[in-house]
Amino acid sequence: MDAVNHQYRLAARPVGLPKDTDWELTEEAVADPGEGEVLVKVKYLSLDPAMRGWMNDARSYIAPVELGAVMRAGAAGEVIASSHPGLQPGDHVSGMLGIQEYAVVKGDSVTKVDPNLAPLPVWLNTLGMPGLTAYFGLLDIGAPQEGQTVVVSGAAGAVGGLVGQIAKIKGCRTIGIAGGPEKCRHVEEELGFDVAIDYKSENVMQALHQHCPEGIDVYFDNVGGDILDAALALLARHARVVICGAISQYNATGAMQGPSNYMSLLVNHASMTGYVIFDYLDRAAEGVREMGGWLSAGKLKSVEDIATGGVEAFPDTLLRLFRGENLGKLVLEVNAG
Amino acid sequence: MDAVNHQYRLAARPVGLPKDTDWELTEEAVADPGEGEVLVKVKYLSLDPAMRGWMNDARSYIAPVELGAVMRAGAAGEVIASSHPGLQPGDHVSGMLGIQEYAVVKGDSVTKVDPNLAPLPVWLNTLGMPGLTAYFGLLDIGAPQEGQTVVVSGAAGAVGGLVGQIAKIKGCRTIGIAGGPEKCRHVEEELGFDVAIDYKSENVMQALHQHCPEGIDVYFDNVGGDILDAALALLARHARVVICGAISQYNATGAMQGPSNYMSLLVNHASMTGYVIFDYLDRAAEGVREMGGWLSAGKLKSVEDIATGGVEAFPDTLLRLFRGENLGKLVLEVNAG
Repeated sequence: MDAVNHQYRLAARPVGLPKDTDWELTEEAVADPGEGEVLVKVKYLSLDPAMRGWMNDARSYIAPVELGAVMRAGAAGEVIASSHPGLQPGDHVSGMLGIQEYAVVKGDSVTKVDPNLAPLPVWLNTLGMPGLTAYFGLLDIGAPQEGQTVVVSGAAGAVGGLVGQIAKIKGCRTIGIAGGPEKCRHVEEELGFDVAIDYKSENVMQALHQHCPEGIDVYFDNVGGDILDAALALLARHARVVICGAISQYNATGAMQGPSNYMSLLVNHASMTGYVIFDYLDRAAEGVREMGGWLSAGKLKSVEDIATGGVEAFPDTLLRLFRGENLGKLVLEVNAG
Repeated sequence: MDAVNHQYRLAARPVGLPKDTDWELTEEAVADPGEGEVLVKVKYLSLDPAMRGWMNDARSYIAPVELGAVMRAGAAGEVIASSHPGLQPGDHVSGMLGIQEYAVVKGDSVTKVDPNLAPLPVWLNTLGMPGLTAYFGLLDIGAPQEGQTVVVSGAAGAVGGLVGQIAKIKGCRTIGIAGGPEKCRHVEEELGFDVAIDYKSENVMQALHQHCPEGIDVYFDNVGGDILDAALALLARHARVVICGAISQYNATGAMQGPSNYMSLLVNHASMTGYVIFDYLDRAAEGVREMGGWLSAGKLKSVEDIATGGVEAFPDTLLRLFRGENLGKLVLEVNAG
């Protein structure tokens, strides 16, 4: 193949928000797939808050991205050459393809997806990692009962918006926290949450107190910081706090802000449990089946925020996540032509 | 009855460590028990870190002690008059008798104890609230498996010392954190922990790292603060953190220190769960039976630190808890004559 592949590599470990100098845009010839590998033409890149953590040199649930390596990212694309018996040119797949236009990866490391069942961006959202993250985090860890009160932060984001919709499907009273009137309108009117609280203009503690008169049974946290503390202060007895993320803290240059109200766990005999979706991949089929059913039945809306500009637009587009500018799942379109 | 009852009442809500002016020593005639009540001559007062929380005007698992009320406290004593059909003079009981020499309480609110089976201070310790707190917190919430690593803070205190001994009975590798060489010697040599870490002279994080090469499976926390953060940093996959107390924070005058390493819960798919023993009182018989069996079999040591001086010594004796001066359960002897 004569095509050229553009890639973003990690050039330096960021301090605070990633800067342009933390990235290097490189160019190389597209490689041929080796035995068991496939060559994928990337169509959509998934941009996720967790990527910020992967850039740090710290022990975590996954190895850090090495300096000089192509930035790790989920993506979906089309197989254009294959040395794997299960995949043919023309098949569509999703997997960890990285921030690049073409990826050569093990065929066993990607999942075949059907673009006729749902557009590729939905396979990176409701039928992909964010969907599974919402599904198992809420139902397996949060374990809400019908009629209980579920509070979700980052409610206009990919995972948060799905968590609230699933909670509604399960018959819960659902309160979302988001930033700004546009997001709050979206959360209430498009996603069907009972209430949206605007953390930029409201006192979150007071608003939660008003809207959760019997306390919070499940708090699903994507943000950390002061909002986590406010929710902790208002837990109901035997509440479950699900720790899915802490986007307010990912770019902190000082110490992480710990939840100073954590003793509410003792007072209320409550729990706080963390997880990453990689622990649930053996149950992925269950999640995709359920979420797919709700999508087909019109019970669930899959919201994607599709940015354009190709791989070159990656550094700026990523920052939109940390500025809270995305509505739903942030996806970057690549190779659109 | 002509006897006089001395009592300590809460005179003011403390800021920081309780001061003498936060207490009022009062004197009144000993009352007669009304219908269903008993008059108990108090023999031993239980002094517990949780008492500090009861002095604050804050929503918690139990109502605050009202200003002017006798300070709430567990205690054990002898029934000297009874209008309750199930209790006779000469019976011994334990219950919430308060900081006083005589208590008139509902007969149904106290538990009959047998001083021939175990001395009264043991009924305030291993066979009482601290014992049940250790038993259910470790086994029900911590759920350690044989061969796993259990770390306990406040290991020379009443609850911590029992937690470590129970963990050993269950076949766990057990590491205690305590302050000073005397306590650490006690924890290792008397209580049989595998290792004691002296937080006053050692770097707790480094020591935990050294002694828990495969991470911490169960962390039982009595102290909060920096030690909680160090343990969080070293959790094993699927670890359970049991939040039983936070004595390092109870007298803080600023905000509580939240655990800034709480995202380790996410990285390790771990949980942090709080509780108070009042939630387990319906299973108290099970705990007393098991702990009593281990005591009789010589598998468990009940360690009491018995202070003297009567009720008058209460304010100073309570402060010993917060200065970390007690070894085992702190009990104040009253009416010893």
